[in-house]
Amino acid sequence: MLIPETLQRAIDELSKLPSIGRKSAQRLALHILKSEVVDVQNLSDSLIDLKEKTKVCEKCFNISEEVVCDICKSEKRDKSLICVVEEISDVIAVERTNEFSGLYHVLGGVLSPLSGKDAESLNINELLARVKNGNISEVILALNPDTEGETTSLYLAKLLKQYNIKVTRLARGLPIGGDLEFTDEATIGRAVLNRIQL
Amino acid sequence: MLIPETLQRAIDELSKLPSIGRKSAQRLALHILKSEVVDVQNLSDSLIDLKEKTKVCEKCFNISEEVVCDICKSEKRDKSLICVVEEISDVIAVERTNEFSGLYHVLGGVLSPLSGKDAESLNINELLARVKNGNISEVILALNPDTEGETTSLYLAKLLKQYNIKVTRLARGLPIGGDLEFTDEATIGRAVLNRIQL
Repeated sequence: MLIPETLQRAIDELSKLPSIGRKSAQRLALHILKSEVVDVQNLSDSLIDLKEKTKVCEKCFNISEEVVCDICKSEKRDKSLICVVEEISDVIAVERTNEFSGLYHVLGGVLSPLSGKDAESLNINELLARVKNGNISEVILALNPDTEGETTSLYLAKLLKQYNIKVTRLARGLPIGGDLEFTDEATIGRAVLNRIQL
Repeated sequence: MLIPETLQRAIDELSKLPSIGRKSAQRLALHILKSEVVDVQNLSDSLIDLKEKTKVCEKCFNISEEVVCDICKSEKRDKSLICVVEEISDVIAVERTNEFSGLYHVLGGVLSPLSGKDAESLNINELLARVKNGNISEVILALNPDTEGETTSLYLAKLLKQYNIKVTRLARGLPIGGDLEFTDEATIGRAVLNRIQL
């Protein structure tokens, strides 16, 4: 097949992105071909900028444009509360709820022997140091509710206990807007166990 | 929510692409954040190159890196056959079959009064000029099998008849690997009408 090399290269590069297959990559490339030069330049610049201008906050490991991120710097944040999450995307997810006004700590993953993630490769020592040095009253473990997330939560809870602080983790139960009929047994089971008096 | 501006801008730019929503754009942006600088640079360069180095073939309006595309220039192609398609992506689709060795003509759309596409805005006059001047024996109309595609095919067939050439269009029938039970009535109806003696 006679596809020009520049088109083939763009398709190849686009299909390296997660959840973009060959067909989607081709559609995106042909869309870019039809776009204005300035739009393509904007897209391209924004990706380069994202990579070059952002770093990781030295306190909480969240994405930041400066050494310390906006959340850690903010005067409005409750600095005695730390919410521990796996990834930067989880910070965005929790921030979107507007229910949390403390600080974050991005672990960079969870304990997973199979994928070679051990305690050393996560930002656990940095978390302990923050708890030790700061005036922290509570650490909320907001890891994913799967086996690895639960294991890591238990591991962290054990480590954090020595500092005499409150350690909590997110509630398990029925998702809002969900349907009891289509909810899995494990979730319903947890919801029954953790039922709340009205 | 406190998302750094560079991240927000990358998400905004990515979500302008077709079939990329806010959530996908965020996932792509966070993936790019974790990628190597050289990979992001490659992606970015390939998009800019695609836009800057490619043009449209002056003969058939297919994508090309030169004034005339590789297919039009090729010695191996049957220059008496023209396959008319809507978009550049359709050229790629037909090329992938390896069943066609003639030339192409990209219309740039189909007649569609609702979206303001009339005969003037398509490459119809250029097609007629090619048929008039070249040694064309057959024009294959390979437009999409929907109402607008069919209408445009009939319109083109009428125009092309004056040049005393064979005008054909792609067969309609059951898709290979399809399931009779789940095929729509219109398709089965066409397949019955166009049945072939064994």
